[in-house]
Formats: sequence, structure tokens, C-alpha cells
Amino acid sequence: MTKTIDLNADMGESFGPWTMGDDAALLDIVSSANIACGFHAGDPDVMARTMALASENGVGIGAHPGFLDLQGFGRRKMHVPHGTLASMIRYQLGAAQGMARAAGTQVRHLKLHGALSNMACTDHAMARACYEAALEVDPDIIIMVLASTAMEEVVRGLGCNWCGEIFADRAYNDDGTLVDRSLPGAVIHDPALAGPRILQMVEEGAIITESGKRIPTAIDTICLHGDTAEAVQLAQSVRTSLTEGGIAIRQFSGRRG
Amino acid sequence: MTKTIDLNADMGESFGPWTMGDDAALLDIVSSANIACGFHAGDPDVMARTMALASENGVGIGAHPGFLDLQGFGRRKMHVPHGTLASMIRYQLGAAQGMARAAGTQVRHLKLHGALSNMACTDHAMARACYEAALEVDPDIIIMVLASTAMEEVVRGLGCNWCGEIFADRAYNDDGTLVDRSLPGAVIHDPALAGPRILQMVEEGAIITESGKRIPTAIDTICLHGDTAEAVQLAQSVRTSLTEGGIAIRQFSGRRG
Amino acid sequence: MTKTIDLNADMGESFGPWTMGDDAALLDIVSSANIACGFHAGDPDVMARTMALASENGVGIGAHPGFLDLQGFGRRKMHVPHGTLASMIRYQLGAAQGMARAAGTQVRHLKLHGALSNMACTDHAMARACYEAALEVDPDIIIMVLASTAMEEVVRGLGCNWCGEIFADRAYNDDGTLVDRSLPGAVIHDPALAGPRILQMVEEGAIITESGKRIPTAIDTICLHGDTAEAVQLAQSVRTSLTEGGIAIRQFSGRRG
Amino acid sequence: MTKTIDLNADMGESFGPWTMGDDAALLDIVSSANIACGFHAGDPDVMARTMALASENGVGIGAHPGFLDLQGFGRRKMHVPHGTLASMIRYQLGAAQGMARAAGTQVRHLKLHGALSNMACTDHAMARACYEAALEVDPDIIIMVLASTAMEEVVRGLGCNWCGEIFADRAYNDDGTLVDRSLPGAVIHDPALAGPRILQMVEEGAIITESGKRIPTAIDTICLHGDTAEAVQLAQSVRTSLTEGGIAIRQFSGRRG
Repeated sequence: MTKTIDLNADMGESFGPWTMGDDAALLDIVSSANIACGFHAGDPDVMARTMALASENGVGIGAHPGFLDLQGFGRRKMHVPHGTLASMIRYQLGAAQGMARAAGTQVRHLKLHGALSNMACTDHAMARACYEAALEVDPDIIIMVLASTAMEEVVRGLGCNWCGEIFADRAYNDDGTLVDRSLPGAVIHDPALAGPRILQMVEEGAIITESGKRIPTAIDTICLHGDTAEAVQLAQSVRTSLTEGGIAIRQFSGRRG
Repeated sequence: MTKTIDLNADMGESFGPWTMGDDAALLDIVSSANIACGFHAGDPDVMARTMALASENGVGIGAHPGFLDLQGFGRRKMHVPHGTLASMIRYQLGAAQGMARAAGTQVRHLKLHGALSNMACTDHAMARACYEAALEVDPDIIIMVLASTAMEEVVRGLGCNWCGEIFADRAYNDDGTLVDRSLPGAVIHDPALAGPRILQMVEEGAIITESGKRIPTAIDTICLHGDTAEAVQLAQSVRTSLTEGGIAIRQFSGRRG
Repeated sequence: MTKTIDLNADMGESFGPWTMGDDAALLDIVSSANIACGFHAGDPDVMARTMALASENGVGIGAHPGFLDLQGFGRRKMHVPHGTLASMIRYQLGAAQGMARAAGTQVRHLKLHGALSNMACTDHAMARACYEAALEVDPDIIIMVLASTAMEEVVRGLGCNWCGEIFADRAYNDDGTLVDRSLPGAVIHDPALAGPRILQMVEEGAIITESGKRIPTAIDTICLHGDTAEAVQLAQSVRTSLTEGGIAIRQFSGRRG
Repeated sequence: MTKTIDLNADMGESFGPWTMGDDAALLDIVSSANIACGFHAGDPDVMARTMALASENGVGIGAHPGFLDLQGFGRRKMHVPHGTLASMIRYQLGAAQGMARAAGTQVRHLKLHGALSNMACTDHAMARACYEAALEVDPDIIIMVLASTAMEEVVRGLGCNWCGEIFADRAYNDDGTLVDRSLPGAVIHDPALAGPRILQMVEEGAIITESGKRIPTAIDTICLHGDTAEAVQLAQSVRTSLTEGGIAIRQFSGRRG
């Protein structure tokens, strides 16, 4: 049986007259798209266009809810009560489902965006509030989590469908956390480096840290970016390395529990 | 067989720290609630609370989408392309469905709010753009239309589920349009007048105009208001007159075609 | 010379169709109004109405900038870069000044709202970023600070015009901080208690803590509330106690340095 | 005395993480910048950056208020009461003034944006509501109007400072209105054509229509665009033709009455 892996990227992050990212280029590369739901980016028209394109390209659709903060692109930490977090996840996921149904497709997965994701990575209660809310809307939805974080512990506890994600362009510490962006080598810019590195991690089923340590990890999907031409090139390189290495690019089917 | 009628009112129009209307009082009176979806009023928390209350009270839940205009409460006419109208209907309806599912209930109907409704009353293409978008999200949803307007013609043409609505507190001209608000008698404030008048219309299956003319009309639901104590009193009076007249208050089941 | 004191309250916190607070009642009680600037509450129409009313009543006008968070009423902590804080203070203060000029009046003071205020109370750098931004727009503006907090240290360091504020309805700890809201007695609800207590503090020029300790404090203005009928009654009681005690209610003139 | 002309362009139309236009390129070409005020585009950070750049380049700063409609970029017609229009003009102009003062500069002119401008071109009462509101905030501000429209009649009636504008890239009908965008030749894309054509209009002090008719016009400033590379090239061509034709590019000083 061929080993498979999913490639995901954020999309639909344009808003009104403003465009962002190269969604068309990414749709040729990834198998899953995390689509902004209008709170930190995206608007109903952008969602409709992006879902139609993803659907035509056979790319799986995910809801990508974020904080209600357009100006800050959902990247500013906000202290929001858990009940309100739950409501805003339900709202954004429901909106995405409605748009998807109208486009003849469906929402397969959910991934938290920006500061909401960063906070939930280390805050179990916050991750649980968000994920339980999503599961109330769709008990079968696949929750995409950053592997080896509080998020993963929460979905394992919930016993829901989930998939684990690692970053194509970030270096890891020996404790499984990301190397701080302010340190040299934290972000990988070289496509020639990124592709083989990810292939090796997928083959070994482990995060390989900066020091070379192996951390066995549930790697179901690789997070790529498309905000710059360089990012798209790196994304393409990762795809090429994987397929040439005999790994098929295919939508995750979701683990359970 | 007892004749039945539905009573509907707008609800969930609070926003953040600001409250509006007396939803608790209305829930004892109506059988269907039109719930704001966050664009002109309502927010995810308000929607969650309102849907939970409606569900507990056995009141049917409807999505009440409006223009993206909180400051103007969706009452200011906006000229929005039909494609954008369709997207914003899909988005708001989807969000409402997600919130409803999470509350263990469902969205039964859709009614346009404010200026969006006013414009669609006389603009067939606009009504069609909105209703087709809603039906793409849920082909079985019941579209609530102002009886004898362009809206009704559009839903008849679409062959979808629909129900016709008249106002409890507005006088009608002989051509079926509403008496202009600036004219005396246009708005009915007297509960003692409103109740018997609506009972008579329901019994006759006809709008009774100011001049006394009968216009045979598909009357499935009566629109009530709860924004003032007086409005709640009038709403109560209409309910009392109907039930004392032998008309049962019950959710509409929807006509087709 | 008669001793004088200023009384201030938040106003203009309605938004679009939603009203909040009893501004008319407060205008008979206070000498300074903190007017929301549209980010957490207020809109240009509300600002215009509130400023006109304040001006007619001889009440001094202050800008009350907050986080860009209508749903959360500016009460949710947000982590915003200092440069962005500065821009949003300049923007809101400028907008308030424009509205004031159009109303034939002017903005005398600036007070931070909600979570922005709560954060700046203990974060010198954040307070400084906000206050410097305000002073760039108007070097003569009077900055209203919570007495004996980081805010006061910052304005003393800046050498700008400022005035110190204490709360009419909150109990103080011996270190000058507020008693936590979750503790009994933290919030004073009894008008009969609040008035004489504030009179004593003003006469002594000191915060009187729960234990009876005196903390000498620059008390230039008393913060009152008008969000409930009870709050208005307490505000009225404070005013009565002060005037009966021989303290004249008058707008602060501002300390320097 | 050398004849002079002003060149203006819209700037500061980025928002949060989204960029728009090539402000840096335009700042080398124009003498006046119309800066978005946060309602249809721009945010306080973008305003601060744009004003600082304009100021460094000796480019005059104008407030460019629009409808509160980010998603629609202020290009969707909205029906807003005149009192509300006035408030929103005061608010946006005041905000721009505050930002300008903090940047050590000032707002010299005001120009309406998008649908607000389109509506005010033919609606005297609407133009008057907007311009009177601006003059209440700053009686000396220079109102930039589309020459030979209702706007010009209104500013002449008000007796305020104003300047008249024509478009570099639009063809004119014999009645002074713009050729409808749907017609061939309505928009001029050829830099080689645009430059000499505008030079001739400025020399003759007249709009030259498609048919060659001359309409004597108060031409104080030419509206350029920078949203595409082609637009920037056309803008540069207009500047070159004018300077080579002996017309100096200089900020308008404003007509009165």
C-alpha cells in the first residue's frame, strides 16, 4: 500500500477589494484548503469563489475560523470567554457549511486560525471549548491540530475525528515546540532544503528537530503557505519531494480518538 | 378541522452589550421567531441564547438575514450586486443553521429583514437572487414572504416551500400595498382594534383594506412586534382574539408552488 | 476659597439603534463626560447628539477611546502593538475633536476605556504609548488617570496636563488597588454609604481603604456610573453629599507635571 | 507667471494586512493625496504611514471620506439620512486632522469617495450636507469637487474654498458628464494619448469632449490613479506632458465662492 500524506494551506484570505495570496497556484499543490470564514479575513463572495475553485480542483474544504479582528487579521491575542469562543466557532463553521452546500460540496475539516490557534496550542480548556463547539455543529468533522500540542491531547480526549499537522517551513526544538521566529534558522526559506526534510519526516513518522532528534508524531498533513512567490516555490518543492519519494498526496481520512 | 395560523416576530436583535426588544414576552405569544444573523443585528452569543429560548418554548426558528449594516440596523437601502446578495444570504443562513444544530434544533424558515425585504418586495430579480441562494443551502426551507408582493410571485415561480405573511399593525391600500407610514391610520396602535381586525382577515382568508375591500390572500402567518411595551400588548391582543375566535396558533407547515 | 471637585461619567455609549445608559440623568449630575469614540461604542450620530447635550448643560467633553471591539464593548483584552495603539488613540481623539468643533465646543480631556484602561493601569509602556499619542494631537489636553496607578506615574513623567480620578462605588485595598470584584463589599451599591464616604475622601485628599488607612491621593474627579437606575441614584447621592459638605462641583482645570 | 496645476490621486487605501495601490510611485507624481479615512478603506496605521510619506514628499494631504462599507470599498450606493452623512463626514475629517497633526502636518482639502461622490455629483442636497459638515469642522478647508457638477454649484453657493477636478483617464460627453464606462473609449488607457490631451485641456481651461467641443471649466487639479502599473504609467505621462508643456505641478491654493 502506498503511503499517503495530505498537504494543506490557508486560502480565501482576500477581503472585499483586497486580494491576498496566490490561491490558484496553491490549488495545484495542496489536497486540503483552510478557508477563512469572514471574521479575520474572507467575505461571503470570497468564500464562494474559493470553495468553487477548491471543489473543481478536488481539494478538500476546511473551515478556518478566527477572532473577529479584520484589521489585525486575527493575529492579535484577544481574551474572549469560552462561551463566546464556542458561539463564534459554531457561527463560522455553520456559515462555511452553508456556503459549501450551495457550492455543491461540503466542509470536511476545521482548523483554528492565527492567535486563536496560537492560544489554543497551549491552552487545553480553550482548545476544548472550540472543538466541542465544532463537534456540536458536525460530529463527524475532522479537527486539524498542530501535532504534539495541547490541541492533540484535547482531540484524543474527545474521541473525535482528527488529523495531525506539521509545518513545512519551521524548525522544531527538541521538546516539539517551534523554534522561536527571532532565532536564526527558525523559518526555512530554501526550497531545496524543505522538500527532502519533510519527505524524511513523513517516511519516519517523526518530527526531526534542529539537533536531529526524532519525535514520533502523528503526521497526517503538512502546512504550506502561499503568501509570497517564494512560499509557493517552497510548497511546490515539498510536493515534488514527496511524490518523487513515493508518497501519494491525498486528503487525510481522519484518525479517531 | 380547526383552522390554524402562525404568529411571527423578529427576535435576537440585541448586539454585544446592547439589548433590544422583549424576546421573553414574545416567546409566550408567537409560534415562529425570525432571528437576526449578525449582519444587521445579533451576534453569535445572542443567536445562541435566542435559539435556545425559542427551542425551549416550542417556537419555530427562522433565519432573518439583512444587509451588513449594524449602525443602520439593516434599514438603509444598499445597492449590492445580486451575486453578493446570494453569498450573504447563504452565509447568514448557514451560520444560523450551524447555531441551530449546536442548540439541538433547526432552521425552519427564512425571512428577509429591513431594507433588504423592502427592496425585494417590489424587485422580482432581487427576491429571486435571495431565495434561490437560500434554497441552494436548504431546498426544503420555508420562505416567508409578504403576501401579494413580488416576493410571493417569485416563490410561486420557484415552486419552493413558502408561507404568506400579513402585518398585524399596518393598514392596507386597495391595491394590497401598505398605507404609507406618513398618513394617519397607517400604523395601528390600538390593541382593541388590532385583534378583531386580524381575526376577521384570517377567517375570511383576505386582507381587508382601509376602504373595506377584501383581497383574497394566502395568510399563513401574522407579523407581530415586540420593540415596545405597547407592541407586546398589541401582539398579545392579536393572539387572544384569534384563539378566542377558534383559530389555533400553530407553526405554518409551508405551501408549495 | 471653596474647595472644588469634578464628577465624571461615561456617556454616548449607545450605538446605532441600541441605547445604553441614562445620559440625560447623568448630565444633571456630572461636570465632565467621557464620550465613546466609535470603536467600542458610540457612532458619529451618537457622538454628535451627546456632545450637543453636554455642551448645552455646561458639561466638559472628554474623548473616551477604546479597543476596536463593538461586540465586546472594548472590555476584552487585546494584544495590540504600541504603534497601533498610538494610531488608534490619535484617530479616535481626532474624530472626537472634529465632532466637538462642529458642535461649537471642544475636547478638554482624554480617558482610556475598558480593557485598554485596565491594561494601561499596570503597564507603563502601554500607558505612555497612548498618552504620547494623545499629546501629539493636542499638547494641552488633560489626561484623566486612575490615581495612584502606573497611569499617574506616566503623566507625571510626561509633564503634561492631567487629573486624578477615584471611583465612587469601589472599595480600595491598603496598597491603593481596587478590591477584587469577586470579594464581598468590592462594589458599593448603597447610595447612603457612597456619598458621605466620597465626601470624606475629598475633604482629606486621600483614598480611605477598607481597613481605614489613608492614602494621600491627587483626587480631582470622581468616577460615577449611569448604566442602571441604582447607579444614577448613587451618583446623585455623591453629588448631594459633596455640595452639602461645601464642596463645589466644577470641571477640573488640570495639574501639570 | 507660470501656469500651475495640481495632480491628485487616492492613497492610503490599504487595510490591515491587505495592500492596495502603489502609493510610493504616486507620491513622485502627484502634488495632492486623497487619503482614505477608515470607513471604506484605510485604518489608523495606514493613515499614519501614508500621511508621513506624503508629508516627506511635500504632497498635500486631503481627507477622503466614504461610506461605512469596507467589503464594498465604499462603492455601493447607500441611502443614508443627511444628518448621518454630516456626522460621518465630521468624524472622518476630524480623525484625519488628528492623524495629520500627530504627523506634524495638516489636512488641506476634502474630497468625497466612491458612491458617496457619485451620488453627490447629481444630488445638490446631499453634496451640501457633506460640505457644510466639513466646513463646520474646518471653515478654511478646500473642498475638491468634480468640475461642472452639482458639487461645483454647491461650493459656489457656500462661498467656501474649493478647487475643480477633471479626470485624466475618462472621456467626456458634450453636456460635461462622463461617457458611460460601458461604451468604447470611455476610459483612456493609452499614456501617449492621455498626456497631450490633458495638457491641451489645461492650456485651454476647458474640458474637451469626445466630439471636440470645448466646455470652459475651472480646472485646478487632475485626478490620476495608481491601482495598476498601467495606471501609474498613464499618471506619469500626464505629469511629463504638463511639465514639458510649461505647466508647473503645484498644490492648488483654492478658489473662493
